[in-house]
Amino acid sequence: MKITDRKLEHLYVSKKYDVESSATGFEDVSLLHRALPEVDKDSVDTTTVFLGKELDFPFVIPAITGGHPKLRDVNRRLALAAERLNVGIGVGSQRAAIEDGSLAGSLEVVAESAPNALKIANLGAPQLVEGYGVDEANQAIDMIDADVFCIHLNFLQEAIQLEGDTDSDGVINSIEKLSNELDIPVMVKETGAGISRPVGRLLEDAGVDAIDVAGLGGTDWTIIESIRARNEGNRFKESLGQTFSGWGIPTVSSLLELDVDIPVMASGGVRSGIDIAKSIALDADVAGVALPLVKPATENIDQVTNYLNRLKEELKIAMFLTGSKNISELKETPIVITGKTREWKESRSL
Amino acid sequence: MKITDRKLEHLYVSKKYDVESSATGFEDVSLLHRALPEVDKDSVDTTTVFLGKELDFPFVIPAITGGHPKLRDVNRRLALAAERLNVGIGVGSQRAAIEDGSLAGSLEVVAESAPNALKIANLGAPQLVEGYGVDEANQAIDMIDADVFCIHLNFLQEAIQLEGDTDSDGVINSIEKLSNELDIPVMVKETGAGISRPVGRLLEDAGVDAIDVAGLGGTDWTIIESIRARNEGNRFKESLGQTFSGWGIPTVSSLLELDVDIPVMASGGVRSGIDIAKSIALDADVAGVALPLVKPATENIDQVTNYLNRLKEELKIAMFLTGSKNISELKETPIVITGKTREWKESRSL
Amino acid sequence: MKITDRKLEHLYVSKKYDVESSATGFEDVSLLHRALPEVDKDSVDTTTVFLGKELDFPFVIPAITGGHPKLRDVNRRLALAAERLNVGIGVGSQRAAIEDGSLAGSLEVVAESAPNALKIANLGAPQLVEGYGVDEANQAIDMIDADVFCIHLNFLQEAIQLEGDTDSDGVINSIEKLSNELDIPVMVKETGAGISRPVGRLLEDAGVDAIDVAGLGGTDWTIIESIRARNEGNRFKESLGQTFSGWGIPTVSSLLELDVDIPVMASGGVRSGIDIAKSIALDADVAGVALPLVKPATENIDQVTNYLNRLKEELKIAMFLTGSKNISELKETPIVITGKTREWKESRSL
Amino acid sequence: MKITDRKLEHLYVSKKYDVESSATGFEDVSLLHRALPEVDKDSVDTTTVFLGKELDFPFVIPAITGGHPKLRDVNRRLALAAERLNVGIGVGSQRAAIEDGSLAGSLEVVAESAPNALKIANLGAPQLVEGYGVDEANQAIDMIDADVFCIHLNFLQEAIQLEGDTDSDGVINSIEKLSNELDIPVMVKETGAGISRPVGRLLEDAGVDAIDVAGLGGTDWTIIESIRARNEGNRFKESLGQTFSGWGIPTVSSLLELDVDIPVMASGGVRSGIDIAKSIALDADVAGVALPLVKPATENIDQVTNYLNRLKEELKIAMFLTGSKNISELKETPIVITGKTREWKESRSL
Ligand SMILES: Cc1cc2nc3c(=O)[nH]c(=O)nc-3n(C[C@H](O)[C@H](O)[C@H](O)COP(=O)(O)O)c2cc1C
Ligand SMILES: Cc1cc2nc3c(=O)[nH]c(=O)nc-3n(C[C@H](O)[C@H](O)[C@H](O)COP(=O)(O)O)c2cc1C
Ligand SMILES: Cc1cc2nc3c(=O)[nH]c(=O)nc-3n(C[C@H](O)[C@H](O)[C@H](O)COP(=O)(O)O)c2cc1C
Ligand SMILES: Cc1cc2nc3c(=O)[nH]c(=O)nc-3n(C[C@H](O)[C@H](O)[C@H](O)COP(=O)(O)O)c2cc1C
Repeated sequence: MKITDRKLEHLYVSKKYDVESSATGFEDVSLLHRALPEVDKDSVDTTTVFLGKELDFPFVIPAITGGHPKLRDVNRRLALAAERLNVGIGVGSQRAAIEDGSLAGSLEVVAESAPNALKIANLGAPQLVEGYGVDEANQAIDMIDADVFCIHLNFLQEAIQLEGDTDSDGVINSIEKLSNELDIPVMVKETGAGISRPVGRLLEDAGVDAIDVAGLGGTDWTIIESIRARNEGNRFKESLGQTFSGWGIPTVSSLLELDVDIPVMASGGVRSGIDIAKSIALDADVAGVALPLVKPATENIDQVTNYLNRLKEELKIAMFLTGSKNISELKETPIVITGKTREWKESRSL
Repeated sequence: MKITDRKLEHLYVSKKYDVESSATGFEDVSLLHRALPEVDKDSVDTTTVFLGKELDFPFVIPAITGGHPKLRDVNRRLALAAERLNVGIGVGSQRAAIEDGSLAGSLEVVAESAPNALKIANLGAPQLVEGYGVDEANQAIDMIDADVFCIHLNFLQEAIQLEGDTDSDGVINSIEKLSNELDIPVMVKETGAGISRPVGRLLEDAGVDAIDVAGLGGTDWTIIESIRARNEGNRFKESLGQTFSGWGIPTVSSLLELDVDIPVMASGGVRSGIDIAKSIALDADVAGVALPLVKPATENIDQVTNYLNRLKEELKIAMFLTGSKNISELKETPIVITGKTREWKESRSL
Repeated sequence: MKITDRKLEHLYVSKKYDVESSATGFEDVSLLHRALPEVDKDSVDTTTVFLGKELDFPFVIPAITGGHPKLRDVNRRLALAAERLNVGIGVGSQRAAIEDGSLAGSLEVVAESAPNALKIANLGAPQLVEGYGVDEANQAIDMIDADVFCIHLNFLQEAIQLEGDTDSDGVINSIEKLSNELDIPVMVKETGAGISRPVGRLLEDAGVDAIDVAGLGGTDWTIIESIRARNEGNRFKESLGQTFSGWGIPTVSSLLELDVDIPVMASGGVRSGIDIAKSIALDADVAGVALPLVKPATENIDQVTNYLNRLKEELKIAMFLTGSKNISELKETPIVITGKTREWKESRSL
Repeated sequence: MKITDRKLEHLYVSKKYDVESSATGFEDVSLLHRALPEVDKDSVDTTTVFLGKELDFPFVIPAITGGHPKLRDVNRRLALAAERLNVGIGVGSQRAAIEDGSLAGSLEVVAESAPNALKIANLGAPQLVEGYGVDEANQAIDMIDADVFCIHLNFLQEAIQLEGDTDSDGVINSIEKLSNELDIPVMVKETGAGISRPVGRLLEDAGVDAIDVAGLGGTDWTIIESIRARNEGNRFKESLGQTFSGWGIPTVSSLLELDVDIPVMASGGVRSGIDIAKSIALDADVAGVALPLVKPATENIDQVTNYLNRLKEELKIAMFLTGSKNISELKETPIVITGKTREWKESRSL
């Protein structure tokens, strides 16, 4: 299967099957209700600055699709919505489009549709090992006129694919090099298994400018790959995916793990504006929701903007009900942590 | 929809649908059984003084209905029952009756039917922002010959109604002003989302005379508004209600949060005399049960008094079985806290 | 209804309906398995001395039936089994037989059938308040040639019966008097709601010689009374019983609560020899099982002895598997406490 | 029933019925995901040395079958697979084959089929009490050309069989003697009820060279014996088995209990390479999986090797994803412990 077709298949599988794992930890977090907000909800200010750009609310559409003729419209709709709502937008792995220039167009549409929005280019860590460097990164950046360059870590997914790229030796050096040499900020993200405290430190020390935890709890690549393997009749891969389902650091635990001074993005099972607010209260700077955008993005742009507007309104209400006039106040709002997340926190002395 | 009709609709929705959220936290509290009470149950003294009036037992019918011709009988039944059992009675928001004098009669019946009972007038915080002040408060007070004036905080409900009143700026000043200028005690209550430690302090500092936590766990306004939105075909409001269902501080956690020297009322999911006893042992002074009174109050007065008598008997038995001769002794009875409430307590260092 | 018929009805209700409440706490206790017992199971010594008499294993049939012609056979079977296995046997309240001498015969059978077994006479605390004293106690003692005199505390049951005896004032003085004046040891037991730390101290200070916690978790009198009320069509009493179901101190928590130097009996949901072993490891001296004996005792004596033999064998295995050569070693065997019982322990600083 | 037929029956019951108990504790353990492994998965080194022999990965097929003509093929398949994958292999109790020399052949096949693999001979502790000593041990060793001699502790199983061998007095001395006098290392294992801290110390002090915890959570002998008893119509034994089901120390708790300096094997509910990795991170040296091998071993050798290969691949992925280049690094990888296992740990101050 060609890389580009794989991206397409991922999208379809994630749309058709239930590919979410359950425990993000958001259910273990309560924002402390403030019966007397002493705020006018209409004056609640959701704007924030992330990696140098102001966003209307602390939201970034995470990396979802890559380059493929059939994905052009999906990319366009997401980009248009990002532009309209002035939030960030990431694209999925641009590897295929770099290897096959004819695919670039389906991604360039992002730059055209979202000229002002914060745009995030994307390549995978395995490519760095295979030799990708500043040149390829710049190609990816130029392709969508990106403001940020993002490297995704997906070794769980690679590992259970068997034929996947599982050499991660030296990745941190490549990341450090890109951080030094690229002109724009560099972000590193996971893809559903979260970032631990030591990995967070490693990345910060390497000069990375932001981290997206992309923790366990939402889109589960072990399930997606297991379904693909079943459809291919590969029992061994199917069972590998099942065995590793549930592997990783739940999103909220990952936010608790992180102890860095660079901006943090929360993704992985974020499902409402309340979850965005919880993420911020847990010290994230922005949050992202991927899976629930897949269906709207394959249909029409209004569905995408409606969904984003709902998230924004929910966040605003959550801010209002915690008496947070702006994002910095939301960061300081008290939270209550219970259940398994509380146990994780204690067990890890976080 | 007129405000007055909204009150009517609230009553009907709460009667017809399941509008309770589940976790009050009372299930996490045990009163320590005293096998040897060393008390004669018949001599257990349930009387208490709340805001200057003696009650036969520490119970106040919470604010339920407002002014509306069709609600006259409901108000009358609740008032008659309060008078017979010598407990307190609150009325729901009197805003409509203040704006439209013709509605006042349906509330004045409370004064007529319960001349001696502790009566609590009621207006919402949003009205204070809109300019209501001492004059309107006095109108509300006079309407039912109230002993206490109560301001309810319902910003959660207002927020998810979208068109709701969500300017809470300056509310605390208005509350302080009313506390200073009114001749009778001023109480502040939530409406299903609870009061946190900082808000409790704020209210005490503003000179408020009593607080009703009205915490999460009983009548859930997010569910009620979601049902109303569904009936109106408004999908966005319907989903907002669902997303915010579960928002707030559970009643027991709210009692643990409070750290004030003024009297406290417990409401929100109180469902038996045992729950009343638990509330007192958790340092409340009185408790209230709203939702289960809705059906009896729309039928006949005996059903209301029977229900109240049952609560009183249960409270008395709980006092007897903890060896509490009177309400002050009940306050000192040992309790055991487990489960999620225990985790809340620890997480918040209460 | 006559008192004596009430005892009969209790037996039938407990036989026919599910009258057990669930959480004894035994499920939260693990005995630490000792893979290398270094013991010959055949030489495990289960004998113990309780209140001056040696028992073949630390078991006492708790108070179950009282005086009634129809209960004569039940009493006889239990007594014969106690004699055969050399365990203790208590009888239920002897009040009816004291008030109506013609009923005494159905209890005297216990003395005849179990001449050597430890026999425990029984009267309720409410009778002490009504004036019963040394005379009546001696009548009860003589009736079954008792070695121990037991007073049961059942104020929960009395309270939810409405017409029950709920004057407990002065009970402790009467208990102290009996402790001083009777020639045989005095035991005090609950009847399904457990003994707290302060009540345990009170009893010890009053000179009581033993305590049976009879905690929450097995036979639940609130359920029994609720069923009886339903059968009588008394809705109020029926609902009272339901409301108070679950009231009390679970058996294991009660064993943890107790901090006395007198012997302790564990009852309330004990359902196997493992539970007996857990009770001993939790510092009880003997244990009792009532409800599961009801059916066998109404059928034939072999069923009773079989049941007791099974308990004994299970206890012996549990002792063997913890490497406990005798009951004193079992007392020292390590235990693990988890779940709600662990939370109770922490909440009460036990 | 002859001993040898009993082994056969055990195999069939474990194949046909659900004989697993549920809570191993592995579900309470998370390995901390390392998003940036900094390792090439292909270079992950799973080899380890256990009791003097190098294994391709830290796995030993636990004792399963004994000597019986019908078990010859089962033994051969397991041995061939062990040889091919270069892992260890234990055999089940060799008592029958020692008592009846004609059965030895069905075990000697192990030596023939696995000339190079680590082979573990096996006798039960009860035999030591009955007089087995160095001679019989050497017979067992010679029969399969064993590298290790293993004594299994199965007193739970013996106890609930009633006619079982339940004299464990002096076992530790016999173990000490064998440890001193045999030329090869001596291992001691449980059979589904785990090893506690004190027993671990006792064994280490006796000179034992390795311990297999064989904890609660996988194959449950109380269930197997209960099923056998039911099939025989023996109600008492059937119920004994049910009562003791759940007795023991869960595998993970047992690993936490152990505080010894000799090698440790984890078995009892190990069900994937992730569980093997968790075991190592919990300080075990090797792990074993018995029950899931029963069916493959009765069918053909490929099924056995496939299963083992799957375990190895899963372990390798788990090592890769925790950034563990080799088994020593895996031992140091951080873990998170939650749930009941966490409570066990705290309750026992482990
Ligand atoms: C269909 C789909 C494709 C994705 N492709 C990529 C990708 O190419 N690169 C990447 O970094 N993340 C990718 N992600 C992961 C998301 O960026 C994000 O980290 C994660 O899915 C967020 O969790 P959620 O889907 O539960 O909201 C993809 C997610 C989905 C649902
Ligand atoms: C039908 C209904 C109408 C209510 N209206 C008001 C109101 O107008 N003002 C107010 O302060 N609280 C109002 N409440 C809230 C109650 O006063 C109370 O705080 C809460 O419902 C107590 O919880 P419970 O219903 O679970 O017992 C109302 C409650 C119900 C059920
Ligand atoms: C049918 C029945 C009648 C009982 N009657 C008495 C009684 O008269 N006096 C008393 O002290 N306890 C009485 N008990 C309570 C038992 O002595 C004991 O404390 C308790 O039931 C033990 O719990 P279990 O039934 O769960 O094993 C009775 C119990 C049962 C089941
Ligand atoms: C069918 C069967 C037979 C067994 N026979 C023995 C035996 O003879 N000796 C022994 O030490 N363990 C024996 N075991 C126990 C295993 O060696 C091992 O400790 C345990 O079963 C591991 O747990 P698992 O089956 O959940 O993986 C047997 C296990 C099974 C399933």
